[in-house]
Amino acid sequence: MYDHKYLLEFTTGLFMGVGCSRADAAAVANVLIAAELRGHSSHGMIRVKEYYELWKSGRVNVTPDVKVVHETPSTAVVDGDSCFGMVAGVRSMRLSIEKAAVTGTGWVATRNSNHFGIAGYYAMMALEHDMIGICVTNANPLVVPTWSVSRYLGTNPLAVAVPALNEPPFVADFATTPIARGKLAVAEKKGESVPLGLVQDAEGNPSDDPGILRRGGGMLTLGGDREHGSHKGYCMTAVVDIFSSLFSGANFGPFVPPSVAYLPVPENQPGKGTGHFFGAMRIDAFRPADEFKASMDAWIKTFRSAKPSQGETRVLIPGDPEREAEERYRKEGITLVPAVIEDLKAIAAELGMSFREY
Amino acid sequence: MYDHKYLLEFTTGLFMGVGCSRADAAAVANVLIAAELRGHSSHGMIRVKEYYELWKSGRVNVTPDVKVVHETPSTAVVDGDSCFGMVAGVRSMRLSIEKAAVTGTGWVATRNSNHFGIAGYYAMMALEHDMIGICVTNANPLVVPTWSVSRYLGTNPLAVAVPALNEPPFVADFATTPIARGKLAVAEKKGESVPLGLVQDAEGNPSDDPGILRRGGGMLTLGGDREHGSHKGYCMTAVVDIFSSLFSGANFGPFVPPSVAYLPVPENQPGKGTGHFFGAMRIDAFRPADEFKASMDAWIKTFRSAKPSQGETRVLIPGDPEREAEERYRKEGITLVPAVIEDLKAIAAELGMSFREY
Repeated sequence: MYDHKYLLEFTTGLFMGVGCSRADAAAVANVLIAAELRGHSSHGMIRVKEYYELWKSGRVNVTPDVKVVHETPSTAVVDGDSCFGMVAGVRSMRLSIEKAAVTGTGWVATRNSNHFGIAGYYAMMALEHDMIGICVTNANPLVVPTWSVSRYLGTNPLAVAVPALNEPPFVADFATTPIARGKLAVAEKKGESVPLGLVQDAEGNPSDDPGILRRGGGMLTLGGDREHGSHKGYCMTAVVDIFSSLFSGANFGPFVPPSVAYLPVPENQPGKGTGHFFGAMRIDAFRPADEFKASMDAWIKTFRSAKPSQGETRVLIPGDPEREAEERYRKEGITLVPAVIEDLKAIAAELGMSFREY
Repeated sequence: MYDHKYLLEFTTGLFMGVGCSRADAAAVANVLIAAELRGHSSHGMIRVKEYYELWKSGRVNVTPDVKVVHETPSTAVVDGDSCFGMVAGVRSMRLSIEKAAVTGTGWVATRNSNHFGIAGYYAMMALEHDMIGICVTNANPLVVPTWSVSRYLGTNPLAVAVPALNEPPFVADFATTPIARGKLAVAEKKGESVPLGLVQDAEGNPSDDPGILRRGGGMLTLGGDREHGSHKGYCMTAVVDIFSSLFSGANFGPFVPPSVAYLPVPENQPGKGTGHFFGAMRIDAFRPADEFKASMDAWIKTFRSAKPSQGETRVLIPGDPEREAEERYRKEGITLVPAVIEDLKAIAAELGMSFREY
């Protein structure tokens, strides 16, 4: 078990080792460790190797000139100069919050960035300011529009964080597809099939094969098929793609660069890098903050007291599982799988550092 | 077949007949006829009787004092004074657009309103101003959170309209549930079952019975069940509910008043009426409008040229079916089912008007 503070210190050091400033390295490390703490290890330390190799391949600029290229009282466009996504992400979300403080709401579109970890991290930055935080990003294409076999969309997550008064905040942070790609990989390794409604084969037929993506198959949008509303899932994922790319001039849909070095960057890209979109809304731009937050307490209590289905024990509020994971992992420490530990040891050795083994 | 102009004139007259000003009656009629033209007859003339009876039951104020009760440069709260939803809806969306013109974006939360028709109508108001339009509303509760049997959420639609240059606009306008309630009613009338994954019974078991809502069952969120991502659908529908209610102090979740007079208003309501939320974002607050719109053309062309699945002929862009319906119905006229024609004749007679029969 690793103490999260040790992982934070190690990871900050590692990214300083590749040339990042202390502040930039800390931004990357903070978001990765937040993912571990919140139980999303798919976006945690396992990504260090991917990011490291993306840097080695020359696709990440560790001394970026991240700058605001356009702005109005409530909006801005940020160019990340090919930075690690967290560097542009934290800067952009801070700017959203600053603008919201002045004009009520702030909206920042970001281009020329890379994979930025969990979207929820940025949305949650708004909470301590009594603001609602919103964050979306596009991602490399694996997902098919309804009635298509073309992988033109990413798993495009959406995060919304809403503060409450005495209750913990509402934090929705979800890929707009039925499941994460990582879960397909786990099922494949175990030799298991997956339920129908998650993936299709290269011709667009239903499939239960978790390895089908490597044979021309695609992930389905939320809903699965047309009669279960996949066209609504397609709308959602498409809206996230448009917000993430077109406001700033980042790449859209099939042109979004992959977050791993072993996949090539698509040719003839119409935009710059990966794109994100951030929003902050000051609660008291609408209503006294304590009044809103007391209403949010009532919302949360109402939904928490919903009657569970037969065989279930409780109804969750978005953010409950992640908060409970964080309470546990902060106290008990974080477990890393052996393959990740080996990767971290190897990278540390390359950089003249060492990674403690437990 | 009815010419849409005749329906517009008749419906405006009808709502003037119950006491609305000409402008307010025209707002109601415009949105209802837009729904018919766009192929969403479930939100069209069939609602006239519902609205009329809601007014007769005293739940709608036809001489409302719709007013802004709070504002900042980019936000406002509107109180609809129990008006027909379209009256508050059009006023609120206009205000969003005005604020966006000044500060880049405008966001308006509306309370004390009623059913407002298709969300897409309001989102599309932004298009001619070179703005992106956003609109959500909550609705009376029929939908269960994941793992629950409590009907605590509405079908809560989300609409996003994005202008393009030479291509028609992207218009996503969808209930955040797998299907509309109206489709359950149609299946029930035909004596058909529905696919699993749309509704559940009173204990939370899967059901294919389209009449199950009248026996304590509930509609499922997008995704259907947990392993197909229903918790993400729950997040979406919950976010729409929170935005629609808590910014303005309207009712949330289980307390949203029904849009029909034969269902009672829930007791102990924490808020005022039904709530909506509107947003307008000026494109050139981020990027020159023509540059953005040319990129949107590229987005649309790319997705339109996606390869169809085996047996399918084309991949749709959100808004395609509605635009094609509108082109046809504007030219050919609108067909109303006999029951709706009878209802309209009866209401017209009560108001000393007449409804033409074809």
